[in-house]
Amino acid sequence: MIRVLVNGMGTIGKRVAMAVKKQDDMELVGISDAAFTGPVRTLLSPYGELHGTKLYCSSPKFYDSMKSQGIVEGLLEDLLKSGGVDVVVDASPKGIDAMNKEMYKKYGVKAIFQGGAEASIADVSFNSFTNYDEARGKQFVRVVSCNTTSLARTIGSLNKKYGVEKAFVTLIRRATDPPKVKLGPINAIVPDLRVPSHHGPDLKTVLHDVDAFTMAVKVPETLTHVHVVEATLKKEISRDELLSTFKGTPRINLIKASHGFGSNAELMEMMRDLGRPRYDMPEVAVWEELTHVEGNKVYWMHAVHSESIVIPENIDAIRAMFGMMDSESSIEKTDKALGIMKIDI
Amino acid sequence: MIRVLVNGMGTIGKRVAMAVKKQDDMELVGISDAAFTGPVRTLLSPYGELHGTKLYCSSPKFYDSMKSQGIVEGLLEDLLKSGGVDVVVDASPKGIDAMNKEMYKKYGVKAIFQGGAEASIADVSFNSFTNYDEARGKQFVRVVSCNTTSLARTIGSLNKKYGVEKAFVTLIRRATDPPKVKLGPINAIVPDLRVPSHHGPDLKTVLHDVDAFTMAVKVPETLTHVHVVEATLKKEISRDELLSTFKGTPRINLIKASHGFGSNAELMEMMRDLGRPRYDMPEVAVWEELTHVEGNKVYWMHAVHSESIVIPENIDAIRAMFGMMDSESSIEKTDKALGIMKIDI
Amino acid sequence: MIRVLVNGMGTIGKRVAMAVKKQDDMELVGISDAAFTGPVRTLLSPYGELHGTKLYCSSPKFYDSMKSQGIVEGLLEDLLKSGGVDVVVDASPKGIDAMNKEMYKKYGVKAIFQGGAEASIADVSFNSFTNYDEARGKQFVRVVSCNTTSLARTIGSLNKKYGVEKAFVTLIRRATDPPKVKLGPINAIVPDLRVPSHHGPDLKTVLHDVDAFTMAVKVPETLTHVHVVEATLKKEISRDELLSTFKGTPRINLIKASHGFGSNAELMEMMRDLGRPRYDMPEVAVWEELTHVEGNKVYWMHAVHSESIVIPENIDAIRAMFGMMDSESSIEKTDKALGIMKIDI
Amino acid sequence: MIRVLVNGMGTIGKRVAMAVKKQDDMELVGISDAAFTGPVRTLLSPYGELHGTKLYCSSPKFYDSMKSQGIVEGLLEDLLKSGGVDVVVDASPKGIDAMNKEMYKKYGVKAIFQGGAEASIADVSFNSFTNYDEARGKQFVRVVSCNTTSLARTIGSLNKKYGVEKAFVTLIRRATDPPKVKLGPINAIVPDLRVPSHHGPDLKTVLHDVDAFTMAVKVPETLTHVHVVEATLKKEISRDELLSTFKGTPRINLIKASHGFGSNAELMEMMRDLGRPRYDMPEVAVWEELTHVEGNKVYWMHAVHSESIVIPENIDAIRAMFGMMDSESSIEKTDKALGIMKIDI
Repeated sequence: MIRVLVNGMGTIGKRVAMAVKKQDDMELVGISDAAFTGPVRTLLSPYGELHGTKLYCSSPKFYDSMKSQGIVEGLLEDLLKSGGVDVVVDASPKGIDAMNKEMYKKYGVKAIFQGGAEASIADVSFNSFTNYDEARGKQFVRVVSCNTTSLARTIGSLNKKYGVEKAFVTLIRRATDPPKVKLGPINAIVPDLRVPSHHGPDLKTVLHDVDAFTMAVKVPETLTHVHVVEATLKKEISRDELLSTFKGTPRINLIKASHGFGSNAELMEMMRDLGRPRYDMPEVAVWEELTHVEGNKVYWMHAVHSESIVIPENIDAIRAMFGMMDSESSIEKTDKALGIMKIDI
Repeated sequence: MIRVLVNGMGTIGKRVAMAVKKQDDMELVGISDAAFTGPVRTLLSPYGELHGTKLYCSSPKFYDSMKSQGIVEGLLEDLLKSGGVDVVVDASPKGIDAMNKEMYKKYGVKAIFQGGAEASIADVSFNSFTNYDEARGKQFVRVVSCNTTSLARTIGSLNKKYGVEKAFVTLIRRATDPPKVKLGPINAIVPDLRVPSHHGPDLKTVLHDVDAFTMAVKVPETLTHVHVVEATLKKEISRDELLSTFKGTPRINLIKASHGFGSNAELMEMMRDLGRPRYDMPEVAVWEELTHVEGNKVYWMHAVHSESIVIPENIDAIRAMFGMMDSESSIEKTDKALGIMKIDI
Repeated sequence: MIRVLVNGMGTIGKRVAMAVKKQDDMELVGISDAAFTGPVRTLLSPYGELHGTKLYCSSPKFYDSMKSQGIVEGLLEDLLKSGGVDVVVDASPKGIDAMNKEMYKKYGVKAIFQGGAEASIADVSFNSFTNYDEARGKQFVRVVSCNTTSLARTIGSLNKKYGVEKAFVTLIRRATDPPKVKLGPINAIVPDLRVPSHHGPDLKTVLHDVDAFTMAVKVPETLTHVHVVEATLKKEISRDELLSTFKGTPRINLIKASHGFGSNAELMEMMRDLGRPRYDMPEVAVWEELTHVEGNKVYWMHAVHSESIVIPENIDAIRAMFGMMDSESSIEKTDKALGIMKIDI
Repeated sequence: MIRVLVNGMGTIGKRVAMAVKKQDDMELVGISDAAFTGPVRTLLSPYGELHGTKLYCSSPKFYDSMKSQGIVEGLLEDLLKSGGVDVVVDASPKGIDAMNKEMYKKYGVKAIFQGGAEASIADVSFNSFTNYDEARGKQFVRVVSCNTTSLARTIGSLNKKYGVEKAFVTLIRRATDPPKVKLGPINAIVPDLRVPSHHGPDLKTVLHDVDAFTMAVKVPETLTHVHVVEATLKKEISRDELLSTFKGTPRINLIKASHGFGSNAELMEMMRDLGRPRYDMPEVAVWEELTHVEGNKVYWMHAVHSESIVIPENIDAIRAMFGMMDSESSIEKTDKALGIMKIDI
């Protein structure tokens, strides 16, 4: 049983903690945060899924107050020093994660960082489908971001089968997560001023032989990103081959827009109707009607649920680092534990 | 066991069907719709909560096609004629419900209509807290709308204890349900041109002795309505009395904005963190910091989850019509079955 | 000719500068800002309405760089010291205005502050309709905020004619100005946690004998605030008297929702169709269909264009401080110069 | 003097009418609509820019009522029969325009249709830059839509200079015009289910030798469309050549995002600061920082103000049909009359 601690209880951290609890080959030894105030208390309350989890304070500054109130077991650093943790999944805000890394280094604890961090924070960037084996034995691994993960799965599946020469992707990004009410825009489209946006180069960190050129905008909605992809393959394929590649790849669902799922809002309603916890959709949703082939160029649109898509990859990364099983087995095991499946409605 | 059929599988109908399944004193004998195409198929699919429920076609026009495809058991009218249903919960679109009523009348089947219908559709309008007993023995009962239900619970609780002389409410309405992508507005506030809006008179149908004057606007969000209420009581009370009235009333939760729940988006995130199915919040959420008392006038703001707030009232209405138990017992029983509770975080 | 300088080139400052240029009894001697970078350069460019205006640097830190680039004439402080300015209209961000005040004090220059500042920044708060004469001879005057200005005009007009005992107002606020793309919320209603919100007490600074209780929310749109008002008068009036009071008051327009202007978006389109510069609407727009009278209580909804409503009041405030003419004359003169009018469409 | 009538007073029609009035080689002999009720009355009121224009009723059904009220001069059909109109600019809703065509045919009157109509409605589709001469002598001409017009200008300018082999465009569409409050979505991205979307084939109607593949989504904002373009040229060019092509083409502006114009909301504010009537931006706005060249592939993003971009093309189309002058002269003449210019801020 790998002993896992999750540090940082934001959008990603709280989901990883719950996902770890659902695995039978790992144990959630605790979660840590600077201060367990605010909305995270819902999860820790008697009504919440993390009720009873051991809490550790990640901030010496707040520690005394939190300890004396009986909120936390101890200081995160002390726990790490004691050798009680095999791997930390760090889901701290950007900047904090880099500081935490020094602490993990000091105590020789493995850690997984998130895609918000620079690639240089880790020994290797990670995706379950494209470079699982590269994480083996590494101390620091970085699971790439939600956007990059969706591209690694989809473009990666085509690359494996047919070879992808290059790709051009327009990313239409949800502006922020649903509960973050301070961020906009309200009535605007805001382009990412980097050309290419960082997503193209980021994809290369896990899918080394594909050049992807990406441009991105932010739009006023909170549900999912939507990507418009043009991939140039090394050979011509048929639309059926495109569809069957996606159908044959875990964590990609082909959705029928014409059945009433023609927008990301209707996709989220599908997740609610499926009884998904917090309407999460860790699978990439490719709209079947929006797939198209012209010679060796293939086109599609997919939706990316930024809050949850990287959760299974975080679980796989743990297994990859400790060499617990191969990629295919881990993906299957994770998906079964988390209720990730091939949907055909 | 009361045999219940739910007619109409939209926002309300699908939720009522699932709620009926969770009761031990009623049985969901079937659901009906014109055609079981579109998103509702998610619920009926092997992944869905209504999988295996018997389906009936409510439209003779579509019946042959649906029967021959093996989708439905039979025609709704035939089922009603056969005496297999004690009560229909009708959640059909406005206009259709009135036509359905004629059919229910013909076969002497009891029916519950929703708040979108005119009050005249039923023998009595209904709220669990204010006029439960009036539904006893009636053939046709109408559960008042989401907005009215929230006012019946909150203003009703004060009326019961202290007497409410009158009320003035501004309703800030969510423009439409999350998956309805065709409706706006996108960047506007749209006043309801009726003064008073229909909500005030509607409240009187269930809370007979309170005059409420209401004005309403529609704003571009999809989560909850928010009401700003001024109630003039028949006596002066303290803020503590106000809070304790709400605390002592089922299906009202006092929420601490200062704990990170200061908007309806954060409230919905709380529901997700609580593991609520489809992040439903059938309780009225009153923001504790937004309660205020000045002499015999009390002020507050509350959030109304329009998709789910009337679900428990529909269940209670069934018990009330058949005289199965008293109001208090039904409310308690329904709430236990549906996971409705007093939240204190 | 009163020599006016406008300090701060944001939403309000740029509009006041252009409004001053349109008056024949005052002169725009210059505008100042920390650095004339960013969007304000549009106005200063050869295509812009402020082209050729003398620029002054308000920040010693940026002065050398801006002077050497030939952007500014000089330092604001030097200009004030030289006696070249009779009054500064300060439209600096909150906090900066308070620091500026010390400078104005030092050089004995009169200044007008905006409603974002605390009332204590000035000797008197100001509205053209309710307390014009109080500004006479004062060194520091504060024009109340957009929300308060709209209430001073509307409630003030009723108070003058019939006496207003008290008022209860729900403010549904546009979340931010159109070009501010960083601010949200995107899909939420965010209540103001102060009860009453500051608007009620703020109204009292200019309309001393009226107690207004206010509650406010922020909604995801950028066009106008909308207020829902209940005013309790000292006597009963008819709906005709209500309408004729508003019709007889400058800077209030009665808008017919049923003629196609039933939302604030359609109101803004009306301003575009009227050829209004930047679709500004300095008048309060009361929807005629949304006025209602019950005994001595009157109800209405109005829209407040937060970007422009206080501009005429800033102009009037200058005349009031210098005793140039009485309230009625100044209002008429300002309105004529700015194209403010009674619209009947 | 070409005698022009504009039929249909929606978003496009009202703007074309005002633009015709600003030309010295054409005369607005009247405007027509089914009924001049609703918001268009603003323009016809004494405050409006179309005040005094002769009105004609386009609908026999409404004619008697409108004539007897003294609103209209006469019936549109009678005017056409009398020979009083050289060309109709038809900006009627889709479907109505096709019926109108029969009437224009009957009386031998030339007409210009808008891009919402099928290409087959006219003898030729039109863009001022790519196929101006093809309209000469034609009875029916169709000005392509806002999206297509922007692509004809930008891709067309590169095609003329370097040859464009093909293009791939993602269109991120504003969901509806600002005053249309009934349309959504509010919180969703809605893909266009056609692949390719109609824009690619539509471009070919005016830029015959370029194959453009297009995919489109609708997002919840009302300001402009944004396009993300990848164009494959017949030769390699430098980024400077790309920029200088755009700089050298009328009706394209290079905008500096880094100067404070990094979103379409800030672009619209720039138009307001420029004093543009109704903040219109008939120019395509290409973000300078978002231009990129890789070998013979060029990339950029541009914003399309859908309400106004086709207005100058409608004016040019009139001159083209009557052979009044060549393309370059008409573009220059139109731009001067309408205040369209090369902005460098």
